[in-house]
Amino acid sequence: MNTDVPTGTPARIPTPEPGDPRLARLALNQRTTASWTLPEAVRGCADAGIGTIGVWREPLAETGVQAAARMIGDAGLRVSSLCRGGFFTSGDWLGENIAALDEAAALDCPTLVLVPGGLPEGSRDLNGARQRVAEAIAELVPHARARGVRLAIEPMHPIFAADRGVISTLAHALDLAEQHPPEVVGVVVDTFHLWWEPGVLAQIARAGERIACYQVSDWITPLPPDALLGRGVVGDGHIDFTALTRAVVAAGYRGPVEVEVFNAELWAAPGAQVLATCARRHAELIAPHLPKGRST
Amino acid sequence: MNTDVPTGTPARIPTPEPGDPRLARLALNQRTTASWTLPEAVRGCADAGIGTIGVWREPLAETGVQAAARMIGDAGLRVSSLCRGGFFTSGDWLGENIAALDEAAALDCPTLVLVPGGLPEGSRDLNGARQRVAEAIAELVPHARARGVRLAIEPMHPIFAADRGVISTLAHALDLAEQHPPEVVGVVVDTFHLWWEPGVLAQIARAGERIACYQVSDWITPLPPDALLGRGVVGDGHIDFTALTRAVVAAGYRGPVEVEVFNAELWAAPGAQVLATCARRHAELIAPHLPKGRST
Repeated sequence: MNTDVPTGTPARIPTPEPGDPRLARLALNQRTTASWTLPEAVRGCADAGIGTIGVWREPLAETGVQAAARMIGDAGLRVSSLCRGGFFTSGDWLGENIAALDEAAALDCPTLVLVPGGLPEGSRDLNGARQRVAEAIAELVPHARARGVRLAIEPMHPIFAADRGVISTLAHALDLAEQHPPEVVGVVVDTFHLWWEPGVLAQIARAGERIACYQVSDWITPLPPDALLGRGVVGDGHIDFTALTRAVVAAGYRGPVEVEVFNAELWAAPGAQVLATCARRHAELIAPHLPKGRST
Repeated sequence: MNTDVPTGTPARIPTPEPGDPRLARLALNQRTTASWTLPEAVRGCADAGIGTIGVWREPLAETGVQAAARMIGDAGLRVSSLCRGGFFTSGDWLGENIAALDEAAALDCPTLVLVPGGLPEGSRDLNGARQRVAEAIAELVPHARARGVRLAIEPMHPIFAADRGVISTLAHALDLAEQHPPEVVGVVVDTFHLWWEPGVLAQIARAGERIACYQVSDWITPLPPDALLGRGVVGDGHIDFTALTRAVVAAGYRGPVEVEVFNAELWAAPGAQVLATCARRHAELIAPHLPKGRST
């Protein structure tokens, strides 16, 4: 009998085998298997029949960009997103973001996820920090366009407004994105960050072709002691994935559904069990609401 | 030398003495001194020159409503708010809220704070829970009006959307409040819950006479392990109290400024030191932005 991690409860459905059409749209964000290196995550995806991976810059640097691009291609995978650009209040933000755009281009990755960053040290000027994000994105746009990589603004749960991401709602992220062409600046719809937003379904409809990335994880209670590592596997918490997924599909999104779960207990489980749990939950709770076929 | 609690840093200004006009608008929400009984909190306020107290139902029940009303009156205090009504998804919500309204009336307290409550057990229907709040408030309105007590909807930080308060923004709280006359249904402006809301200053202006209660505490990072007890004393965190206080004043609010800090470290400090710290921070960071004179 298969067991879900980290809950330890019996699996509700058999694990989809590689080639199962229900896996066609599933992508693994590699932070979901944080104990794996990038080569391990690539091999794990290939073994599990997950055709798309979201890559993080730190493990990418360990492997080397060219080696990683070869390895990912040889495994038959595609890269859905590179995490993370942004952090516009840190020292060499422009150089770091241009480097990230170069890496995304080298991986043939269409999307650079922008985590806006928090308040500057000692500052209480939230509006100023938000204005700074708008200015920084405008400065990045020509670099992104030149590389054919789309910037994806990630609105983050207000729990992170002080220290990680000052853009707190999809509505606000769209206000910023709409100042630029949709093929250059999009948004991330992340269920953990946005599930609570009043009117979020209407904002998803408004986003339309600007949805550059759909990331899924659940909101669980009680919130674990380290809120940053407090996300749940899809189905373990309070989020209505049916309504959100249908809205994202209705908005025209045809890309991968990237499972991105920061959870200390999950990270302690063997990576293959993590992937199997995520595949089952995707097949049960997300895939039924997606159009048939592979992501585009 | 005075020391601030819980930081242990030297006080930046002398503690205002009783009668200092800078204390005229300060109120103590009794949860800030959670280790004190209600009689202890009443005596503590009187000793510190704090003329107004926000009362919680649980310690009120321990003292008894009539005894508490006498004791508060004898000490020359007024009651700014009673916490908490609401929790509209729990069993006998109507009976509990009517009892709370009776208690508020007995204390000559103008305001019952409504904490809306979270999702019903096992439910993922956030919109349904929000609709439920609107219906429950409509049902409570005649009971509140009959007692001359104002219902104050408390929008709560999205960190609490699942398990404590499904109304997450001041904008949304006002959408609900505006279905009723302002003298019967108002809102709570709590800095901890709302500081991150895009457009919050415009929403405070929109609120105008509906601001029934202004509660202050700070957002500190890193967030303590128990997020519910993670609030900071005014000035210890990231919130711009100048902008928020000025907006509340500009909206016409002339009531008390209730310091409400849930913080496990603060609760471990002696109550008199807690009050002295709060009085200093109020004098330094809030009072300069208030019109002169006692609250109304």
